[in-house]
Amino acid sequence: MRVVVIGGGAAGMAAASRIKRLQPKWDVTVFEASKYVSHAPCGIPFHVAGYVESLDDLCAYDVSFFREDRGIDVRTGSRVIEAGDGYVIVERRGEVEEHGWDYLLIATGTRPAALNADCHDLKGVMCVGSIEDSVYIKERAKKAKNVIIVGSGYLGIEMADAMLRLHKRVTVIEMGSHPLPEYDVEIGELLRRNMEKLVEFRGNEKVVEIDGGAGRVVTDRSTYRGDLIILCIGVVPNVELAAQLGVKIGDTGAIWTDEYLRTTVDGVYAAGDCAETTNIVTGRKDWIPLAAPANKMGYVAGSNISGLDLAYPGSLKSQLTSFLDLEIGKAGLSEKEALREGYDVVSATVISRARAKYIPDGKSITLKMVAERNGRVLGVQAAGVGVSKRIYGASALLYKGATVEDFFFTDFPFYPPKSPVWDPLVIAARNLFRKLGIS
Amino acid sequence: MRVVVIGGGAAGMAAASRIKRLQPKWDVTVFEASKYVSHAPCGIPFHVAGYVESLDDLCAYDVSFFREDRGIDVRTGSRVIEAGDGYVIVERRGEVEEHGWDYLLIATGTRPAALNADCHDLKGVMCVGSIEDSVYIKERAKKAKNVIIVGSGYLGIEMADAMLRLHKRVTVIEMGSHPLPEYDVEIGELLRRNMEKLVEFRGNEKVVEIDGGAGRVVTDRSTYRGDLIILCIGVVPNVELAAQLGVKIGDTGAIWTDEYLRTTVDGVYAAGDCAETTNIVTGRKDWIPLAAPANKMGYVAGSNISGLDLAYPGSLKSQLTSFLDLEIGKAGLSEKEALREGYDVVSATVISRARAKYIPDGKSITLKMVAERNGRVLGVQAAGVGVSKRIYGASALLYKGATVEDFFFTDFPFYPPKSPVWDPLVIAARNLFRKLGIS
Repeated sequence: MRVVVIGGGAAGMAAASRIKRLQPKWDVTVFEASKYVSHAPCGIPFHVAGYVESLDDLCAYDVSFFREDRGIDVRTGSRVIEAGDGYVIVERRGEVEEHGWDYLLIATGTRPAALNADCHDLKGVMCVGSIEDSVYIKERAKKAKNVIIVGSGYLGIEMADAMLRLHKRVTVIEMGSHPLPEYDVEIGELLRRNMEKLVEFRGNEKVVEIDGGAGRVVTDRSTYRGDLIILCIGVVPNVELAAQLGVKIGDTGAIWTDEYLRTTVDGVYAAGDCAETTNIVTGRKDWIPLAAPANKMGYVAGSNISGLDLAYPGSLKSQLTSFLDLEIGKAGLSEKEALREGYDVVSATVISRARAKYIPDGKSITLKMVAERNGRVLGVQAAGVGVSKRIYGASALLYKGATVEDFFFTDFPFYPPKSPVWDPLVIAARNLFRKLGIS
Repeated sequence: MRVVVIGGGAAGMAAASRIKRLQPKWDVTVFEASKYVSHAPCGIPFHVAGYVESLDDLCAYDVSFFREDRGIDVRTGSRVIEAGDGYVIVERRGEVEEHGWDYLLIATGTRPAALNADCHDLKGVMCVGSIEDSVYIKERAKKAKNVIIVGSGYLGIEMADAMLRLHKRVTVIEMGSHPLPEYDVEIGELLRRNMEKLVEFRGNEKVVEIDGGAGRVVTDRSTYRGDLIILCIGVVPNVELAAQLGVKIGDTGAIWTDEYLRTTVDGVYAAGDCAETTNIVTGRKDWIPLAAPANKMGYVAGSNISGLDLAYPGSLKSQLTSFLDLEIGKAGLSEKEALREGYDVVSATVISRARAKYIPDGKSITLKMVAERNGRVLGVQAAGVGVSKRIYGASALLYKGATVEDFFFTDFPFYPPKSPVWDPLVIAARNLFRKLGIS
């Protein structure tokens, strides 16, 4: 059997590795447009900030590992320009070649969203998409004093953090009222207040014009000048080849897949950031372009292409980030997302010491839990210190469809220097008992 | 209604608070032998090490808070010397008084296990039980150069850590082959190797004689001399009053309770470290004297005494501790515990980077997962960095009876500086897929 994988990112390489493991005799060819495989764009802010020296380090493994150790025919610098029934046409250094397949995996990932044009066409404006972008940003940042970041999702936050570490003056422009606009205000405002200590944060402003050459960003309320403008306004899935093949594109704009990660066309699978999956909390189709789910989707698609029947249950959109010392995380839905999905919700927000009362440090965690009226928890968000373990615990319980009673009774470990004896997850659940009339 | 609570620790005060909230008109009297309430003996090592200045800080709240803010009749320095049907006899400053009850909660906690005699009778030997012990240990430690710690469960580890911070020479004597003998060797040996860098760790040695006056500990293999000898060989439940009342004592030696924390005598409840509960993993009665479960048991017993029907599901024995920089934690069963319980098990141990490969730091986590042949996970143990979030995640999944597939597919959050994209919990589960023939 001949398997073609379009895209050598996390999902593509996880799938290719899995197929060669289960079906060592099959031909598995990966076409990757860049010169990197198994690349981790999530690492870009850390490369820019200087934690990571070389772009090669942003790749989990290099090409020779996949070729020699895993027997995968990896072809970098190879862009698939056409995909049809049983074939792809690949362009490499100006040469064009046709390649046949029995199974095709589309793992084409995303590209940065831009305002009007393709980001790279906006002179003097940087986007954060492929890991190569990181080199340009880093180079440009050397000479810059004033950096303007448009958008404050994860990437915007992390780029602002990176630029502060490089001693730049940073302005962040956000359409919503607070950074991380998917979060509720209780968490978002905490982040906003933290950011405002070091960054010019401009909320509720809509960008109307960017002139990269002149270093000018015009919003509906003001004009900003900077020597480096970075767009972090999200990503869009690369679905053009999929559409060409006639596979269904879902309502989210990403490639529709069933639980085995099959598309609507026989023999064609999709995985990773270009593909839709199920939101485990809502049970509905969702588009969740995150690295950990992308890796697992690759594993699942590779298993199924190889003949197994492995269902992918979906993702919780679990997330962690930081702005300097402030950790922020979320699993499942915020209240605003839950309301948008039509749920009747109650919520509790607790501010809790991060460790046993008697261990002095003064640090705290703010945690918000959102539940349905029937007691099922829909999501947890938190900011402060000790966030990651609560998002791990919450992710696990949300995965299992847990109720507020489950959150209350789960036996989370107590260790005085790191946790209070009544964990904030437990306190939040207990507060919801009252609101839900449970006890 | 008159409610008497014997013991003003975590369980007793949580219950009393709960009862006054649900039944504000009831008389709730707490008899506590020491002068402290809501005391946290888990904090003793941190008091000895100097993080915590005052013993008062080791109490979540003080007496006046419970009296004035919560309306609880708290009587400190009051030891219950007899308990009978509808009454208790209390001794305070040499005076004896009878007090009637309609409901009785036994929350008498534990005392340190000793070798042959009551610990306080061994001259020059310290035990770690009530928070007042901490003052004596701290005082004695000032003059000591060589400290011998007998036993290396949590408390032994944490006391060894505290003594190192006070610049003492430390010898730890342990009957088992490695510290934390409930853990499997993969984790225990890692801890042993870490301890041996700074501590004289003597495993597989049984203490046969202690002479506190002479500062001598004799084992079956050697003799050790120290100016301070601390016994950390576990605790025993205080069940004497319960036995006097005729309530059933379970096979574990602690007070038998049903899921509503009722004892076998009408109107008598038990909660906290003196009481048995259910091990959520095995479904069997177990004795799990830990602070977080004790607080919840108090909450549940108080709810039920007040007329609600709240079942306590039990505990997972979830635990976290540290030895200097090494974090160690466990939820559910180790392999040796699982075998002892009669399970047919498979296990996987993974050594994983603690963060994304490209974030340099060289630190790692060793994580062991134990599962039944049917795929249900029985326990997770880990040591290294980033342990607590994995034990939180594992606790949540174990609470819900999760399988290796659940561990694999739970969407744990990825954040490069803090987690690798394939979480060690996920890798361990994937390794178990192979051993279980799942895929």
